[in-house]
Amino acid sequence: MRRRRLLAERRNARASVLLASVFALAITACKPEPSRATASQTVTSGSAPANGEVDLAADDGQWVRPAKDFASTRFSTLSEINTTNVKNLRSVGTFSTGVLRGHESAPLVVGSTMYIITPFPHFVYALDLTKPGLPAKWSYNPKPELASQGVACCDVVNRGLVFDNGRLFFNTLDDHTIALDAATGRPVWDTKVGDINLGETITMAPLVVKGRVLVGNSGGEMGVRGWLKALDAGSGKVVWTAYHTGPDSDVLIGPNFKPFYAKDRGKDLGVASWPPDAWKIGGGTTWGWISYDPEADLIYYGSANPGPWNPEVRPGDNKWTSTLFARRPETGEAVWAYQLSPHDVHDYDGINEQILIDLDIGGTKRKTLVRPERNGYVYVMDRLTGEVLSANAYGTITSSSGVDLKTGQLQYNPEKEPKVGKVVRDICPAAPGMKDWQPSSYSPKTGMLYIPHQNLCMDEEGVSANYIAGTPYVGMNVKMYPGPGGNRGELEAWNPVTGKQVWAVKEDLPVWSGTVATAGDLVFYGTMDGWFKALDARTGALLWQYKTGSGIIGQPITYKGPDGHQYVAVLSGVGGWAGAIVSGMLDPRDSSAALGFVNAMRDLPAKTTKGGMLYVFSL
Amino acid sequence: MRRRRLLAERRNARASVLLASVFALAITACKPEPSRATASQTVTSGSAPANGEVDLAADDGQWVRPAKDFASTRFSTLSEINTTNVKNLRSVGTFSTGVLRGHESAPLVVGSTMYIITPFPHFVYALDLTKPGLPAKWSYNPKPELASQGVACCDVVNRGLVFDNGRLFFNTLDDHTIALDAATGRPVWDTKVGDINLGETITMAPLVVKGRVLVGNSGGEMGVRGWLKALDAGSGKVVWTAYHTGPDSDVLIGPNFKPFYAKDRGKDLGVASWPPDAWKIGGGTTWGWISYDPEADLIYYGSANPGPWNPEVRPGDNKWTSTLFARRPETGEAVWAYQLSPHDVHDYDGINEQILIDLDIGGTKRKTLVRPERNGYVYVMDRLTGEVLSANAYGTITSSSGVDLKTGQLQYNPEKEPKVGKVVRDICPAAPGMKDWQPSSYSPKTGMLYIPHQNLCMDEEGVSANYIAGTPYVGMNVKMYPGPGGNRGELEAWNPVTGKQVWAVKEDLPVWSGTVATAGDLVFYGTMDGWFKALDARTGALLWQYKTGSGIIGQPITYKGPDGHQYVAVLSGVGGWAGAIVSGMLDPRDSSAALGFVNAMRDLPAKTTKGGMLYVFSL
Repeated sequence: MRRRRLLAERRNARASVLLASVFALAITACKPEPSRATASQTVTSGSAPANGEVDLAADDGQWVRPAKDFASTRFSTLSEINTTNVKNLRSVGTFSTGVLRGHESAPLVVGSTMYIITPFPHFVYALDLTKPGLPAKWSYNPKPELASQGVACCDVVNRGLVFDNGRLFFNTLDDHTIALDAATGRPVWDTKVGDINLGETITMAPLVVKGRVLVGNSGGEMGVRGWLKALDAGSGKVVWTAYHTGPDSDVLIGPNFKPFYAKDRGKDLGVASWPPDAWKIGGGTTWGWISYDPEADLIYYGSANPGPWNPEVRPGDNKWTSTLFARRPETGEAVWAYQLSPHDVHDYDGINEQILIDLDIGGTKRKTLVRPERNGYVYVMDRLTGEVLSANAYGTITSSSGVDLKTGQLQYNPEKEPKVGKVVRDICPAAPGMKDWQPSSYSPKTGMLYIPHQNLCMDEEGVSANYIAGTPYVGMNVKMYPGPGGNRGELEAWNPVTGKQVWAVKEDLPVWSGTVATAGDLVFYGTMDGWFKALDARTGALLWQYKTGSGIIGQPITYKGPDGHQYVAVLSGVGGWAGAIVSGMLDPRDSSAALGFVNAMRDLPAKTTKGGMLYVFSL
Repeated sequence: MRRRRLLAERRNARASVLLASVFALAITACKPEPSRATASQTVTSGSAPANGEVDLAADDGQWVRPAKDFASTRFSTLSEINTTNVKNLRSVGTFSTGVLRGHESAPLVVGSTMYIITPFPHFVYALDLTKPGLPAKWSYNPKPELASQGVACCDVVNRGLVFDNGRLFFNTLDDHTIALDAATGRPVWDTKVGDINLGETITMAPLVVKGRVLVGNSGGEMGVRGWLKALDAGSGKVVWTAYHTGPDSDVLIGPNFKPFYAKDRGKDLGVASWPPDAWKIGGGTTWGWISYDPEADLIYYGSANPGPWNPEVRPGDNKWTSTLFARRPETGEAVWAYQLSPHDVHDYDGINEQILIDLDIGGTKRKTLVRPERNGYVYVMDRLTGEVLSANAYGTITSSSGVDLKTGQLQYNPEKEPKVGKVVRDICPAAPGMKDWQPSSYSPKTGMLYIPHQNLCMDEEGVSANYIAGTPYVGMNVKMYPGPGGNRGELEAWNPVTGKQVWAVKEDLPVWSGTVATAGDLVFYGTMDGWFKALDARTGALLWQYKTGSGIIGQPITYKGPDGHQYVAVLSGVGGWAGAIVSGMLDPRDSSAALGFVNAMRDLPAKTTKGGMLYVFSL
């Protein structure tokens, strides 16, 4: 045995010498390509309609941020591709990203260039749309720390770049925010904003508002303290930091803070609603979506779950976790907040997208914020005050019975609260919620929200959790499984005025991709087994589909190419929390793997393979 | 510093614990999927025309071995896709292989199932062609030894599976030949045929002839002794081994051995043409193509370069390296041999394809073997006797002045022979030859050979080489660069009767993919920057192209789907010796990397990205 081991060691040592010598087949760190950019584009940031509504006239056919506009509608006014001709849509080009982890990001289109970013290690490519075959103009790799992969809870994803004023901004898994010159790919600045030794990573796409690059951390399962930071777009300097636990001064709560509900009022609730010191490791991270209303001059975003998951060790509301905030972009000052899931007991992060649209509610035009929330309700709120106008279930919920519109309180079902030593069954929705990060779209033409979501329930049992910096701090055994009906996912069309489903397409697997809605009355989304689909936005009828090489969890976009024609693009590459069984090659026999998600996805490796490919379609 | 290192170590240790515990995101060895195969196919092996010619009537639309038929024509009688309608060809499906190294293999189609194999670690997938979206029926992974990657000279490629009598056969980089039940993916037998400790790997696709699975080794740059083995298809037992150096008894040269030329006659030339004992580590491996003539009952294949590359340490012909053999499939007995490049001084392996066709030569119908050879000549030979009927240059050659048809001798240019301490310049073709492994096709309709090849020259300087088992044994500094005209590749149509080029399409990059010719008068091939192209077989006009996600070095095929329609398929995924700069992330500043190939391919990382994707096209 010993001799065999020695031989193996010698062989490996020899192989290393080999790799470094004659054949030089060593895997070296990647260097940024020398820039081959053509003339720089001086395209300005896509303008947001002043009133927060979708401005059908102002759409220039670009896609400069993942959610398309500040209102996060993901709606395009392009209509060349429509319900009649979408059957002729064809793949006109593909580009391999060279990475095989979960691809959750949205491509961007600025002028005649498409920009994409891969999961860790975050290759950024600028693709020339004026030439056939999507040739790269430049590429960039930030060389993130390898160790950051070990701190990421749920695959090493990245949710996208954002373009503003000639620059691209993105975050890295190892906690850097980086600005690149969009024309050349050269880094302009690189700011370290977090620490992987504390369990912090970053997966979210930044948003740039009024020269502030808004960035939040991930790591709610690691005892991280959540925050949102604003970096100066010019210099990369941190202008403000708003924590989501701790004293009001840290949360940037001051005299102008006016929550709508009494439950969210009080001094230093970010301390008082926790056992002593627990707020310091209490989660409330920021790995989802931010919207902006230029007229109200407010940014909107939510904080994630409290930590640890085991709720018995953290009695209290655990503010400001699972909370929706409205803040001033320039100072970070909180204007209102609404805790969606107080004392969250089921990992119902509040990080989902909020779509800013003006709706007729009971005969009155209201400036609303529509939010299909992880806890299972579509919240329609007054975005100026934080008042909940309606909150209706968009799937099966057993963990709560509704939202009290008078008090704003989520009505928990105490029978479904997990306890140490007791397995609580049939909790719906499961930990990833009725909907996780995967963003909805909204069509002002149909008045419908297109919600990609899952249909999963779970069993939970509290277990002890001990905090060691930078290690898992969860304290919950979780086992997920399909919800009622057996389908694990759904693409649902929702009328936010009536608070009712219009139609739904059941999917076998969770719908973990984003959606895009177009003026051609189409909705595009992808499935975890690789189908990219176009539905009739009014009826849900499947009009076209194409099988990409791997499961789709990316955010589709549509844009006008330099030739004046409409294109649709999406990244294919399965992974993320839902697809980690494939991208991370997890053992399907381990029900608890990926925080219990593997139990619900055992068949995924038989349905798709790892991938990383951009697909572009046109007529 | 010390503290920082300790922290890093602690973090890494912690990360490992993490990976193995709560999140279970560990990268575990891949297990074969449980079989989900439907009813087994009892399709018999594609029949080969009895006379070695292309039998237009017998084509059943399948593709059961990489070269299509025993004659290795890679010609399909399918003609639904033709020169008129190929412009409408569209991508109808993609399948991500989950591996990002060079994809050199050919998909197979047997009945209603497509089989593909990836580079190391050799995932095998059975894809159901009767259902939309190419769903996998089963997958299999042999879990090859990781250390084998360190012994592979030129990327970790695999050139394909072969189907015979209900089973799939393939080789692994770590020297196993494996038989799978084609219906279920279950291994039937697994035979270890080589030893990575000696530098042996296997990259070639086997060929099955009369129940013999023919397999050869790679490792000519590692002091390996080359061989071809025949394994019993039923049991996996090695039936015979023919070495390519050493005494006649080892080479399976006996009383029936009748070489055509005097230069190839004599006793124990595999010993006598070497310095003492040098034949034991002299190369002559077998990593290319085998053809079979059922009427003559002869297999044909060539052996690779002698080792080390430095020729000064191995005076003599170095038999039987760079030699074309005709053998009996059942016993391995050599019937004739012809050393193509005696005492090869430029790595002119003789492993290329040989196409068995009957041609009118000078008014006489001859049973020929046509071979576009690495040394730059298209050999047309009598396949029964080994006589060279013609040998004409198909590109720029400076290393030799021709082939003497009387003696069979390659006429070397002594000025281009590399020496220790002297840089010899402008040697054409370069070490990968005018053409490497990438296989040609032949259309009996046009009478043309479609040769994908490179146009590279090189500088060489001999250096010392010391043999240590399992390590590089080369002894040559090599620097390659584009040949005359500056284009590094070409797709050339060649008339083997006239010995002349008919047309040629110049390509910027080496054409490292295979080709397929069809009765629709089309030729398909791919480029190293990802374009998949269809040319008019008669004129070379570009009729259609599609941009795949990564460079193409695979072998395209065409087949009839279960719906009766014609399809074309190819694997995209750059790599191989030519593309190792991308797949192995080699440093472009190191001119000598990848045995000098990197110097000629510095721009490749800007032109393509790593990939691994199957593309299927139809009208």
